[in-house]
Amino acid sequence: MAQQHLEPTDPLAGPVTGDALAGYLRSQATEFLRALRRHREGGAEAQGPEAPVDAARALRRSVRRISASLHTFRPLLDTDWSESLRPELAWLSGTLGMEHAYESRLERLLLALHRLSGAVFPAQGTGPTALTDRPAPAPDRGNLTVGAAKAGALLDRQLTLARTRAHSTALQALGSSRFHAVADTIAVLASEVPLAKSATGTDLRPLAEAAQERLDDAATALPLVTAGHPYNAEALIHGLSPDPSPHPQDAPWHQVRLLLRLHRYAREVLSPAVDVRLLSAGQCLDRHRDASEAAAAAASAARTPRIAPATAYALGVLHADQRHEVEAARFAFQQCWQKQAVST
Amino acid sequence: MAQQHLEPTDPLAGPVTGDALAGYLRSQATEFLRALRRHREGGAEAQGPEAPVDAARALRRSVRRISASLHTFRPLLDTDWSESLRPELAWLSGTLGMEHAYESRLERLLLALHRLSGAVFPAQGTGPTALTDRPAPAPDRGNLTVGAAKAGALLDRQLTLARTRAHSTALQALGSSRFHAVADTIAVLASEVPLAKSATGTDLRPLAEAAQERLDDAATALPLVTAGHPYNAEALIHGLSPDPSPHPQDAPWHQVRLLLRLHRYAREVLSPAVDVRLLSAGQCLDRHRDASEAAAAAASAARTPRIAPATAYALGVLHADQRHEVEAARFAFQQCWQKQAVST
Repeated sequence: MAQQHLEPTDPLAGPVTGDALAGYLRSQATEFLRALRRHREGGAEAQGPEAPVDAARALRRSVRRISASLHTFRPLLDTDWSESLRPELAWLSGTLGMEHAYESRLERLLLALHRLSGAVFPAQGTGPTALTDRPAPAPDRGNLTVGAAKAGALLDRQLTLARTRAHSTALQALGSSRFHAVADTIAVLASEVPLAKSATGTDLRPLAEAAQERLDDAATALPLVTAGHPYNAEALIHGLSPDPSPHPQDAPWHQVRLLLRLHRYAREVLSPAVDVRLLSAGQCLDRHRDASEAAAAAASAARTPRIAPATAYALGVLHADQRHEVEAARFAFQQCWQKQAVST
Repeated sequence: MAQQHLEPTDPLAGPVTGDALAGYLRSQATEFLRALRRHREGGAEAQGPEAPVDAARALRRSVRRISASLHTFRPLLDTDWSESLRPELAWLSGTLGMEHAYESRLERLLLALHRLSGAVFPAQGTGPTALTDRPAPAPDRGNLTVGAAKAGALLDRQLTLARTRAHSTALQALGSSRFHAVADTIAVLASEVPLAKSATGTDLRPLAEAAQERLDDAATALPLVTAGHPYNAEALIHGLSPDPSPHPQDAPWHQVRLLLRLHRYAREVLSPAVDVRLLSAGQCLDRHRDASEAAAAAASAARTPRIAPATAYALGVLHADQRHEVEAARFAFQQCWQKQAVST
């Protein structure tokens, strides 16, 4: 029985000290350097067209984790060092993420346009859930209404332009002296972690627990009772609002998404065990964020001057569809979170 | 125990014969005549502006019930009489119902436009469900976007015109010799029901059970598993379809709505006890039908030539909103129906 309490995969088993944090940061820094090398080789070597994309994703992945650790375990790290590195990591993460964000936003919107046109993608299915009594899919009619086609072309033009710009910005960033300074700092981190003097003997767990508490507090403040009622019609409530930034209701959910990620990364420092429920909850909030931004992109495209009414109509349907995706994601998060609350 | 089995409110307690049907038809015919008198007096006497509306509703109410009884209990009634009356009742019910349908469709769409604009109607609330953690409603901003206001004006124009025409048609119908013939037939029915010779000793219950079976079969054939998954995204799947009649998926639900009504009225003949669950299930399907038709009206308004893109955008959002109401109504019906299936 005592053995079980000391099981190494239980993050709460015994004190975890600064050494664990140092080990985690070193391994993330190593991942960063490896991804950077792959990214630089990506253009030259024949690794397939996906290689630079994967490398960029791996870069972002390690940057997010280093940045999160600097935040959560701040008292254990050299203050000057972490305070100067954190904004640089935020800049890098933001800059590297934009291209992918525009790309996946366009993909999401075009997929939705086809779904709403009754066209069927055999591989992807048409709904968010695997259902058992769905009738056999109709053959792809392969034709959109004029409005849907024009809306798709407009979104393609706008988001491809934004993506291209984001690509240039990312390339410029990766070639900048600012980036080289960050990369140098992370290269040093791969071998030597600037822990605060007190860190070696200090228990990490209270800091990780504080991250969890921040998450719990923010999640508890969400309108989860509403979200748990299917078809509560909350997400589209400002769908035609004259307010230029009509979705302040999304912000607390975005905030919980960030806090959940901080909590998840803090757990990673303590234990390599993956909490599947945390992953699922995070995926719900990723979907919430993606749908929220896709809805905004459709609304923004509809404000393009001189578009045809049919195009505007299709963009209106698309906007509402994505706002309902927002609502669906909140419902899914509520279901997931409730299970979590019951089982812990 | 035997007493309980013979309890008079249990429709299956003992044989119910043609006398019960005759009594039911007489009372419905009396209701019809009373409503007709109130309707005719409505213009002359000071009964408030609602009186003719209530009288028209009461007229439709009794016509639907007489018509349903003629259908369900056909073998018990004089064939020539019922075969000649049924199409007349269908004509009357359809003609009298149109004005109200256009009126409530417009009301539903304008309410949705205001809800989607973030404007709050204190009395009506903003969502389909009473929720406990909804934040205090923001004060009515009282302004719509240009698009929402123009969409509202367009719908108002189109549906008010349709309603006015329906009103004239109904008035013409009520003054026609065709109507007077129906009214005369019903006046006779109020005192003398033309039962078939065999009816007096025949049990009504097998015919009522057959009506229930037709309902059960049709409800079982609905995609209830899909409908029971919240946010299944089925209802909007043809939201931008080039198909001019894009919602064949609604037809089986409309059919179940009619069969449920036939079953409910057949139960009324057997027993005055109201089955609340049947009422609720019927209300879900009414809401389904109303949202389906409102969505079609928004789509149709968007095809008006030379509308502004902002108007078309608002109509697109509105269409999608109502299609999600369709989906919500299916979910609510599934929940209601499932409970019913478990408890019977």
